[in-house]
Amino acid sequence: MNTPADKRDHGGNLDEAMRRYGGHNWIDLSTGINRRPWPIPSLPARAWTDLPTAADKERLMAAARHAYATSAPGLAVAGAQAAIQLVPQLRDIGLARGLARILGPTYNEHAAALTVGGWRVEMVENLSALDGADLAVVVNPNNPGGEHHPAERLQALEDQVGTLVVDESFGDARPELSLASRADRTDLIVMRSFGKFYGLAGLRLGFLFADAATVAKARSLSGPWPVSGVAIDIGSQAFADVNWQRQTIERLRADAERLDRLARQCAWQLIGGTELFRTYATPDAAAINDALARSHIWTRRFPWSTTVLRLGLPGNDTEWARLTRALNDLATSQSSAMD
Amino acid sequence: MNTPADKRDHGGNLDEAMRRYGGHNWIDLSTGINRRPWPIPSLPARAWTDLPTAADKERLMAAARHAYATSAPGLAVAGAQAAIQLVPQLRDIGLARGLARILGPTYNEHAAALTVGGWRVEMVENLSALDGADLAVVVNPNNPGGEHHPAERLQALEDQVGTLVVDESFGDARPELSLASRADRTDLIVMRSFGKFYGLAGLRLGFLFADAATVAKARSLSGPWPVSGVAIDIGSQAFADVNWQRQTIERLRADAERLDRLARQCAWQLIGGTELFRTYATPDAAAINDALARSHIWTRRFPWSTTVLRLGLPGNDTEWARLTRALNDLATSQSSAMD
Repeated sequence: MNTPADKRDHGGNLDEAMRRYGGHNWIDLSTGINRRPWPIPSLPARAWTDLPTAADKERLMAAARHAYATSAPGLAVAGAQAAIQLVPQLRDIGLARGLARILGPTYNEHAAALTVGGWRVEMVENLSALDGADLAVVVNPNNPGGEHHPAERLQALEDQVGTLVVDESFGDARPELSLASRADRTDLIVMRSFGKFYGLAGLRLGFLFADAATVAKARSLSGPWPVSGVAIDIGSQAFADVNWQRQTIERLRADAERLDRLARQCAWQLIGGTELFRTYATPDAAAINDALARSHIWTRRFPWSTTVLRLGLPGNDTEWARLTRALNDLATSQSSAMD
Repeated sequence: MNTPADKRDHGGNLDEAMRRYGGHNWIDLSTGINRRPWPIPSLPARAWTDLPTAADKERLMAAARHAYATSAPGLAVAGAQAAIQLVPQLRDIGLARGLARILGPTYNEHAAALTVGGWRVEMVENLSALDGADLAVVVNPNNPGGEHHPAERLQALEDQVGTLVVDESFGDARPELSLASRADRTDLIVMRSFGKFYGLAGLRLGFLFADAATVAKARSLSGPWPVSGVAIDIGSQAFADVNWQRQTIERLRADAERLDRLARQCAWQLIGGTELFRTYATPDAAAINDALARSHIWTRRFPWSTTVLRLGLPGNDTEWARLTRALNDLATSQSSAMD
């Protein structure tokens, strides 16, 4: 749990793959980041040069509240990751910070940040096992398994735990799951990611919604300019682009089914997924990750499983063609190995 | 000290000035941000779309170490402000975090962040009064007064205080003042700002240099991606542009003298300054701030003085012409008021 931040297991380590396998023209399917990003328009010079003003930040928050269908107090931060880093400091339970339970397996930065922040951390395997925790974390929908819980089921949890933290980083295509509209409750913190669905993870933009006192504390800890002017400008515009959002959700849904079909041809079993990634049980995750890497396609393994493999969705026809070919080759070599 | 982050007194509040005085074509001299920014080249798509890799971050840090002439461990963060936010958590002195002394008046975010972080904060007026503090903060050169202390004088302080924090946000043109090369000492933390000298404050990029254990703690608190891919790409390139840096220092020095000459014509007295701003004692800071605002030129007053006014440097001939005219008008109206 005390692994340094740079050494923890993540997607987004394409540079290591490139070093190991060579080549430059890779398809990075190791993350859940949309590979067809919202198209960046030309930006006003002041987005680069000036400190963001209060008006800039209010404009972004208004757009975010509309997109996430909430009127709760909120704060823009440098990615959902920055919200995760803040959580351990937002709830002090006396001197010892208390017991945090996390529904897992899930994105490992929650446990890492809480541990660094002095919390006792327990991983649990089902929702009811969160009961009684001072702080409970649910990623909904979950990464990497894609499990999701109806909003009502999570609401029921609010009374069973001290503070419920819901990470909705992969929730853009599933607004009916969101608790964001309730985030002004004192026992609820909701975080959202901008970079994944909008395909702009390099921008570092995410949000934390909570009651006013919690948001004020998060703001104090983050300082006046946690988010770049560029992120504010792009976020404000992208949130307003409802057509792009609708088309993107439709495309991602179709593409997820397309990937599932390809996976079935390889006899992989779908474990679950969201509109941004699919997670499969495979015969041998290490071997398949290696074989695809030789075709310069990077997928995601997990240190806790020898079979689970997660793939993001290709972004265009060329990428689909390369992935299809690589998976066909894989299926052929598997069946000839069985001969 | 417990003023919320959005309400604290800062430059960069041009939007309020615009609301009060109208107009859109303002010259913002209320900050110490270079108004002739390093020219941004076209950026690779992955700076926007991908999570920064370990290699990206290493490339930036190598460029930063070269620019700041240090081989100390360091971390890129979202502006010097983010480094200021981290400091209170980097040094725990038992349960109560101890006594911090800050040489002031200076940039007020140091006191604010330390207070929020549970430190007892005292402002002191000279270097020797820092002696005995668990943590001492010196902004060198200082903002807004422009006072500066030779590196040797600050080194001598290292033994007199628990940890010495040196904020070198305005030090780009004065490398001989820097303690960055010594920052691997356990009793020293040095912070640098990218956005001010390079004129790209909206990008949110700054650095913290310290011993390895302190940097590891800062990294744990910041998470794996505190800085945008765009900032990493631009920072890496700008740090390597030695010609632009040299020409910019020369221009800023000449422009600082030019502003001082204009100020003398208004009978303002130079208190001090750096290559990025000049601070003057004026007959009436509120009246002059107001008069210049009517010409849509925004300057910086301070809540603790009725006479002190700080001006950044105009960025081009048009801006110089407008400022010169506005100051001439001011001088004329002042002398006619005295008739």
